[in-house]
Order: sequence, then C-alpha cells, then structure tokens
Amino acid sequence: MLNKVEQKIDEIVTNLHHKEIKELLTKLPKGKRLRAKLILYIAGENEESIKLASIVEMIHAASLLHDDVIDDAMQRRGVDSINAIYGNKNAIMLGDILYSIGFFELVAMGPDIAKSVSNAVVQLSIGELDDVYLSKKFNTDALIYRDMIYKKTASLMEASAYSAATLAGKNPNAYARYGKNLGIAFQMIDDMLDITSDTQTLGKPALHDFVEGKTTLPYIYLYEKLDTSEKQKLASMHCRALDKAEQEWIVSNIKKYDIIEKCYLEAKELVLEALAAIKSEKNQKLDSIAKEMIDRSF
Amino acid sequence: MLNKVEQKIDEIVTNLHHKEIKELLTKLPKGKRLRAKLILYIAGENEESIKLASIVEMIHAASLLHDDVIDDAMQRRGVDSINAIYGNKNAIMLGDILYSIGFFELVAMGPDIAKSVSNAVVQLSIGELDDVYLSKKFNTDALIYRDMIYKKTASLMEASAYSAATLAGKNPNAYARYGKNLGIAFQMIDDMLDITSDTQTLGKPALHDFVEGKTTLPYIYLYEKLDTSEKQKLASMHCRALDKAEQEWIVSNIKKYDIIEKCYLEAKELVLEALAAIKSEKNQKLDSIAKEMIDRSF
Repeated sequence: MLNKVEQKIDEIVTNLHHKEIKELLTKLPKGKRLRAKLILYIAGENEESIKLASIVEMIHAASLLHDDVIDDAMQRRGVDSINAIYGNKNAIMLGDILYSIGFFELVAMGPDIAKSVSNAVVQLSIGELDDVYLSKKFNTDALIYRDMIYKKTASLMEASAYSAATLAGKNPNAYARYGKNLGIAFQMIDDMLDITSDTQTLGKPALHDFVEGKTTLPYIYLYEKLDTSEKQKLASMHCRALDKAEQEWIVSNIKKYDIIEKCYLEAKELVLEALAAIKSEKNQKLDSIAKEMIDRSF
Repeated sequence: MLNKVEQKIDEIVTNLHHKEIKELLTKLPKGKRLRAKLILYIAGENEESIKLASIVEMIHAASLLHDDVIDDAMQRRGVDSINAIYGNKNAIMLGDILYSIGFFELVAMGPDIAKSVSNAVVQLSIGELDDVYLSKKFNTDALIYRDMIYKKTASLMEASAYSAATLAGKNPNAYARYGKNLGIAFQMIDDMLDITSDTQTLGKPALHDFVEGKTTLPYIYLYEKLDTSEKQKLASMHCRALDKAEQEWIVSNIKKYDIIEKCYLEAKELVLEALAAIKSEKNQKLDSIAKEMIDRSF
C-alpha cells in the first residue's frame, strides 16, 4: 500500500525533469511513513488519499532535512543524513524544494485540507525553533515540553488525520484528536529511547538529547525528584559532553526513581486517549498502530 | 502605501504570540519591497491586495534568509545578514516559519492565486539549487543562465503580477509577462552591478559572483569574445580568490569588448517587452518602475 505513495512521490519529483533533484531524493531515507499510514488507514486507498499521503510525507521529509541541519545531526535512523553526505546547503535546498512542491500540490486538495496541513507546518516550524531555544537552558517545565513536542511532532499527525477524515467524509475532529495524542506519545517515546537504547538500535548516542541541551520529559521528572544538591549536579551536566561516570549517575538515578515508568505511563495515557477518540469508528488498523506504540519494553 | 504592508506583516507575526520570532523579524532588513509595489500598483490599495503583498514579501524574505545561508553571505543590502548575526540555524528556522505562514495565509486567497504563488516558490527553490550547481563549473551558456535567473528571481515577480491582476479582475497574463520580463532584467542588472559597483554602494565586494563561481551574463559574453588562450585564462580564474592584477584583467577586458553595454541592451530589451505587455493598460506607476530600472548608468 505504501508502495503507491512511494510511486506518487517519485512521479511528482520526476515531473520536475531535474536530474540533480531526482538524484538527491533517492538518497533520502524513506522512514516509517507513519503519517502516510494514518492517512491511508483513515481514508482508504484511492487517488486522493495517496496524493495527500505523498504530500504530507514530502513535507515531513523537508522538515527532517532542515531539522538535521539545525541539530547538526549526522545520522538519521542509523544512516548518514543528507547534510552529512551532501552538506548543509543541499539539505536546505532539497528541503525548500520538497516543502514548496508539497504546498503547491496541497492547494488542489481543497481549502479545508490545505489550511489544516499548512497550519501544521507553521506549528512544526515554530516547534523546531522552540526546541532550539528551550535547549539553551535547563527547562524544568513539563507543560512547555509537551507544548513544544505537540507543535514539532504531533501537529502534522493531527492535520494528517483531520485531512484524511475530511477526504473520507468521516468525523475530522475525532481523528484529529487521535492524531494529536498519538503524535505527542510518539515523541515522548522517541525521547525516552534516547535514554534507554544504545547507539546500535537507535543510530545515535544515548543521552544525546541531554548533551545537546534538550531536557526531555525524563530529565524534567528526574529533576523534580532530586534533592537540592543533586538538582545542581544534574543542571551542571546540561548541554555539554558527559564522561562515563556522569552518564552512569544520570541513568542510575533515572532507574532509582522509576522515571521511565512514569514517562511510559504518561505516554500510555495519551495513547488511550487517542484510542478513545476513535472508539466508535472501530478502525482496527489505527487501533493497532496506537497499541504497538506502547507495546514495547524500555 | 508600503506602510500598510509592513503593518500587515507585523500583525500576522504578532498573532503568533511568540516573542523570539517577533524579535528576529525586527532584525530583518525590509528591502525595496519591489514585489509589494507591483501588487499594489496593479490591484490598487485594498484589504486583499495588502494581504497578498504581505504574503509575497514574507515568502521573498524567507527565500533570502535561506539564500544567504546557502551562499554564506554575511551582508544583505549593506547590513549584516541574519545568518551573520544570529547564525545559520536561526536564519533557516525563521525562513521556514515565514514560508509556512505565507503558505497558510495564501490558501485564503483562493486556488488560482495560491497555485500561481506556490508554483513560483517551487521555481525559485529550484532556481536557487540551479544557481549553486551551475557555479561548480564555468557555465558558458546564456540560455541556461537566463532560465536560472527566471526561476530564481523572476518567477515570484511574475506570480505577484499575475495574482494582483487576478484580484483586480485585470488581464493576468499580460501582467504576468510584465512581471517576468521585469524580473529577468532586474536580476541581470543586479549581476552587472557586481562588476561595475564598488563595495561601498553594493555592500559586497565587486566580482564577488565570479569568485563564488557564478558566471553571470557578462562573464559568459566576455568568454565568447576572448581568444583561446584568453578563454583558458578566464576559466582558470573561475571560483577562486582573485588578486588585484587578475581583477583588473577581467574588468579591462569587459570594458574592451563593451560587455556591460551588450548586457545592458539585453536588459533594456526585456524591460521594453515588459512595457509592451501592459501598454494598453496605461499604468504609469508600473511604466515608471520598469523605466527607472534601466535609467541608470553603469
């Protein structure tokens, strides 16, 4: 089913008749295509839904291209990022091209969908900026963190679900709630994996977020549990390279205070909210996506 | 008149309720607002035209933010660029935010205008990539150069004029031809100024384009005039720092073969085509914009 989305993206880019762009695109890791799956599972497989899924995935790819430049990320899902291979300039330019093609194609989807998705891109752009600015200090506010990951990650999933439901004549707001809650949970879990996974499985170093200044939910909850001197110790490690002892101190305290369990329960609650939003729709595939997200060990 | 455009841009950004973005925006040089002028001179001053002008200027500003990162440009119109002051990351992120707000607002302008402007953004993104890729070798093909500057610079002026005429119920295709020809001439003249102006007036070093690998029209025409050994000499200077003797050799040969005059006549011809396209419209302000563009000495 996703094959048709890949074909459509290929077709759209081929129609530019531009060798270099086509070539750059082939180097782009395809990822899980989670947003495309949501769209096709909600709207079924038809010309319009495949087009919408392709547009959203091109926009998502564009955002990742720019994110990787902004975060100096040399890897994306275990393979070298476009900026690592072809430099920042090519990553920025390919991102701009994919964004603009996405927007151009979006107009033909009708104003309701075009507004929803383009608004999500505004949100995700702001979310990326918030992520960078929040990293400059030790953010200890879970609400601010949650708002940022909603914008950065969940907004496009929310808009994808809303738009797919609109296409299919289903209840857009119910599916939007599903997409939003799923998206926030997805990012929370991704942030937890930075602490619980080793580089082999994740393709990036563990505690990488914290070294970069990103105080994701586990660090916020850990901070809350620590006493004053420990709080100072944790804050002093923020946004710098950590030696092995420091890494172990963080990981052992996260274990000691059951921080991952606490975060997991919060993510699970969001997933349950996502499931509840579309309960009456009885969409097994969407239910499975949500359940699989929390059906893993940490 | 442009004041209302500035106010509208300010209003749109203020509505994001985001301190950092608002602050970054105040550091953005406003430029000549040529595209806004075209729109207001074509569609008159009303709510819709001011909104369209604001959208196009936000999109244009976004493209310049990314261009300056891609070109490592530390100055923009004589003042430090955003990437120079706040770094590449902020320039990329602010560009993405302005692009996405522009697209979001564009949807409300109706599908005809939204298609035209978003297609122009596809073209200008491709034009920027072409500019970078062409710079890797000594491009000697004037047609390729002209196609690139059409995409990079003229496409958004073409779409601005087309969209403004659509708003006003005027002939969109005639105005589009005006915008396209004006835009190509504008970029040609800008490229000539890199050779004829000193750093004081232009805010960047003379021959900067050639040092960067950009063989603009004067270099292409100069190359055509030179004999084989001189051709090799010019090609050997491509895309590297030049000493004073080399700079003088280029400038004296450009003078010797009347290259600037040749380029000027070509730009003038485009301006005359622009004027001819809207002759029956008798729009004095648009006529003046076109005439002023070629009414300067080189």
